[in-house]
Amino acid sequence: MEKREQWLQPGERLDDLQINDLYLIQDPESFCFGVDAVLLSHFARVKPKSRVIDLGTGSGVIPILLAGRHSHCRVTGLELQADMAERARRSVAMNGLTEQITILHQDIRTLQEVLPAASFDVVTSNPPYLPVGSLVNPSETKALARHEIALTLQDLVQQTAYLLKPGGHFFLIHRPQRLTDIMVLGRQYGLEPKWMQMVHPYIHKAPTMVMLQLTKNGRPELKSHPPLIIYNQDGTYTPQLLTCYGPQKRR
Amino acid sequence: MEKREQWLQPGERLDDLQINDLYLIQDPESFCFGVDAVLLSHFARVKPKSRVIDLGTGSGVIPILLAGRHSHCRVTGLELQADMAERARRSVAMNGLTEQITILHQDIRTLQEVLPAASFDVVTSNPPYLPVGSLVNPSETKALARHEIALTLQDLVQQTAYLLKPGGHFFLIHRPQRLTDIMVLGRQYGLEPKWMQMVHPYIHKAPTMVMLQLTKNGRPELKSHPPLIIYNQDGTYTPQLLTCYGPQKRR
Repeated sequence: MEKREQWLQPGERLDDLQINDLYLIQDPESFCFGVDAVLLSHFARVKPKSRVIDLGTGSGVIPILLAGRHSHCRVTGLELQADMAERARRSVAMNGLTEQITILHQDIRTLQEVLPAASFDVVTSNPPYLPVGSLVNPSETKALARHEIALTLQDLVQQTAYLLKPGGHFFLIHRPQRLTDIMVLGRQYGLEPKWMQMVHPYIHKAPTMVMLQLTKNGRPELKSHPPLIIYNQDGTYTPQLLTCYGPQKRR
Repeated sequence: MEKREQWLQPGERLDDLQINDLYLIQDPESFCFGVDAVLLSHFARVKPKSRVIDLGTGSGVIPILLAGRHSHCRVTGLELQADMAERARRSVAMNGLTEQITILHQDIRTLQEVLPAASFDVVTSNPPYLPVGSLVNPSETKALARHEIALTLQDLVQQTAYLLKPGGHFFLIHRPQRLTDIMVLGRQYGLEPKWMQMVHPYIHKAPTMVMLQLTKNGRPELKSHPPLIIYNQDGTYTPQLLTCYGPQKRR
């Protein structure tokens, strides 16, 4: 821990990702990663040589988890906010993953300026969940990460369609409330929903998150995974959730 | 039972719907109702004075269950196949529901000839599940009930949009594989998905059916119910499934 703490700036903290000895630098005043990032990085199917990009990467948690799990994939993380991007770069360096991960400080809406079309096999995103109309968090950094201020769902889907190779996959975690929007936009931009998994806090509760795989130029037919349940009735984590954490073999 | 059996024709059988002493005449050579019809009639929210229409009513099971549960609603059942429509009429008469239920022998694609626009509060449908491309059942009656031969999902959504009053609801049960198609067509024809419930055979299995409420001119936001689980691990019905059966108070 001593060696890792040299990477911290005042006010920051180190979070143990509990996967393959990976750690993340976080600023408690900014938006911090949650279980959704861990679930998405487990849901995403990444092949050994895949070129992956994470849109709206924030602290870089998804690239770090993906590179930590798949030792041969190369991951780009795109982040709009300069301080978040800088922190993500330090987390990448601290974990010794600079050869696998590149963090770009770039607005998703103008990524054409720096990234060519059809250049990625996989796109991941854990985007802002809340429409602009809802209450905006007083901290601007958190607001940008939580609300569709700088990034609408339409921008995200359109830019993903631009970045993916034909047959490439988009792995997305979002709220079930937006499922219709995701499916309608996906089909509009040639990203066909192929796999879906609902995430339920408890087994007899409504889902609070949904994970989707959309495939560029995919054939229409949506397959479903069994539901992912987070908590047992006694409030402990389910074995199913725990398999998303814990030591994993690097593939 | 003696009195009910006088309604049967050769080769037909009587099925106890296990709800409010309702029975259904079925021909085992034709498509017979399943748990999906019972689930849908329980999922559908029907107000006392609602005008309801069931599209592709088959044996009339959904109108009979709805009228048996909601004593003041009036239900129309539309059926393309003459023998099915005739059998449905006998089941309605046998259950003493002729004042509440009308069975129309009519093609859904030409229902404009007999039904005015915006004339119903509720539309229900348990439509053919299988695309035409898949293997067709050798019995023609079963094939029409199971495959999208005489009725595509697009026809169904378009005709439902024609029949519903603004703010009216469409309750549909279908396969999760078609969820994208349902959502895209719904939005195209002004029927917004508002509520969704996944139906799982077992708790840790993928859903095999999905129930949806789409509302004419509804505001975009999909809400989800907790999952509906059919079987306990030991193969018995769950209490949740049993509440869809059993004696129910007529409302």
